[in-house]
Amino acid sequence: MASERASGEDSLIARYFKPVATDPGAFGLNDDAAIIPPSGDDIVVTTDAIVEGVHFLPDDPPDTIARKALRVNVSDLAAKGATCAGFVLTLALRSADDTWLTAFARALGEDAKLFGCPLLGGDTVSTPGPLTVSITAFGRVPVGKMVHRSGAKPGDRVMVTGTIGDAALGLVALKGTLATDATARAALVERYRVPQPRNALAIAVRGHATASMDVSDGLAGDLAKLCAASGISAVIDAPSIPKSDAAAALLARGAVGLEALVSGGDDYEILCTVAEAHADKFLDEARRAGVAVGAIGTVIAGSDPPKFLDAQGREIRLSRLSYSHF
Amino acid sequence: MASERASGEDSLIARYFKPVATDPGAFGLNDDAAIIPPSGDDIVVTTDAIVEGVHFLPDDPPDTIARKALRVNVSDLAAKGATCAGFVLTLALRSADDTWLTAFARALGEDAKLFGCPLLGGDTVSTPGPLTVSITAFGRVPVGKMVHRSGAKPGDRVMVTGTIGDAALGLVALKGTLATDATARAALVERYRVPQPRNALAIAVRGHATASMDVSDGLAGDLAKLCAASGISAVIDAPSIPKSDAAAALLARGAVGLEALVSGGDDYEILCTVAEAHADKFLDEARRAGVAVGAIGTVIAGSDPPKFLDAQGREIRLSRLSYSHF
Repeated sequence: MASERASGEDSLIARYFKPVATDPGAFGLNDDAAIIPPSGDDIVVTTDAIVEGVHFLPDDPPDTIARKALRVNVSDLAAKGATCAGFVLTLALRSADDTWLTAFARALGEDAKLFGCPLLGGDTVSTPGPLTVSITAFGRVPVGKMVHRSGAKPGDRVMVTGTIGDAALGLVALKGTLATDATARAALVERYRVPQPRNALAIAVRGHATASMDVSDGLAGDLAKLCAASGISAVIDAPSIPKSDAAAALLARGAVGLEALVSGGDDYEILCTVAEAHADKFLDEARRAGVAVGAIGTVIAGSDPPKFLDAQGREIRLSRLSYSHF
Repeated sequence: MASERASGEDSLIARYFKPVATDPGAFGLNDDAAIIPPSGDDIVVTTDAIVEGVHFLPDDPPDTIARKALRVNVSDLAAKGATCAGFVLTLALRSADDTWLTAFARALGEDAKLFGCPLLGGDTVSTPGPLTVSITAFGRVPVGKMVHRSGAKPGDRVMVTGTIGDAALGLVALKGTLATDATARAALVERYRVPQPRNALAIAVRGHATASMDVSDGLAGDLAKLCAASGISAVIDAPSIPKSDAAAALLARGAVGLEALVSGGDDYEILCTVAEAHADKFLDEARRAGVAVGAIGTVIAGSDPPKFLDAQGREIRLSRLSYSHF
């Protein structure tokens, strides 16, 4: 009887995504809406979509597509100082391929568990166009405690997590134009396909950062946005920007320039500013959370775009700051 | 300076959508996330995407696309008994066309005001594929008071708002295969393009309905889903299903069958069940809210799909229950 009643779409949701939707607020995906119960906190809402051929490649494996879709949103929550509360998923599919959907749903469920960010609901629609995965994610912060892009003050230190530029180089490698060995290539491609959101740092960001955002469109452009929102400028010491071994080697032998690292996209690291008085405490909490953080520069007064200086203190000219869709 | 810093995407958001995002939780779209402040209520979350060529036609005007995208979500909130709290928008565009975006954003802003459902944030991405508008909307209900699909009991009356089947006929008309006069055609097309969510009825639904959902994939199929979720069946008196003058005329002269009305999609009316003891009160509140409600049948015990009976009490066979994407 059930199969007589259920439309194809309902069967698809039941089959692949119900096992993932174990949160009580998801109602087993049997209803038209989900519930986020009140906790007295502000609910932080962020939404990011990834499009085949734009944010991921047509032959990327389904499990990395699922992980990337969720992680780019979890990364936003972390940068805002929020802990995860859940997410809803909109999947625009050309066809319902069993192998693809099984792998996609399994990876999504694994990541939902890993980040404590349960699937609450969603919508599955058919499209004649590219596969598009749109996620809206929810987090919690005590009232008024979300960390904004604005709030940076002259004298604050500019901090960034992880390493910068790997994902952009990974994309170049996938397109076949990066001269590097297989190990380095694999590491860079992995960084492009599967971001590592720094949600372990959310509480420290909330406690100490004056401004914060995640780096999704390139460090240079995103820092410029943070500066503009805060009404300040910044000076960055380019050699201090944390780089992976693979990126550092490519840079050292001149195979890529700094611009490829700081103006590419897809880092999904946290960029934040921390008052000098909080810097040691923030770095200490980051260490205990297991998240590498590098101090890369200083906030200064002014309205100029941030400057990147080389080891000799000379300004490095960047011809473009970030990736833009339009 | 600002234009030097801003990426194309940032400019696009600022130019078209900032004027719409007046809610304090939207932070003027200057941040990476929005805030829904705590109210002690459950936050109801629903998400629905509309795709060019699937949910709307490529030559539909931008203002009706905007309205439909928001209204299909507001309709879900209303059916769940929730009042609107806001929404986020993901817009996947092939190109950034000024005329199109201006009209789209203006209509979206007008509807956001009309339904008290402010734009909180969003994401704009480029796509080589069809225009896709994905909205996640938020509502509020007192804790535990969301009205589910489950909860209908034998003896409850089956109620539906507005009129059924107009949007499905409107789509047929747009495809050029419906023999009707210009006035009727215009009315039906308008119903396809611009749903009328019954959010004025949300409080009455919350107060009196045992189960509720919005009719988006066809009355027959959606009622079957409600029955399955509630573990009951239903008998529907087909002549009692509320029909517009245009639909009634087409039905009367045999130009369309009942199936075209009850198995088509895009009604966005509320389908709910109300205990006999609450029926008069519910109908009275609906009248005062200015929402037409028709009683179309009765919930019965059992697990059979709902039956549709004609004026002579004979069962009407439906070859398909609803629209399905896959």
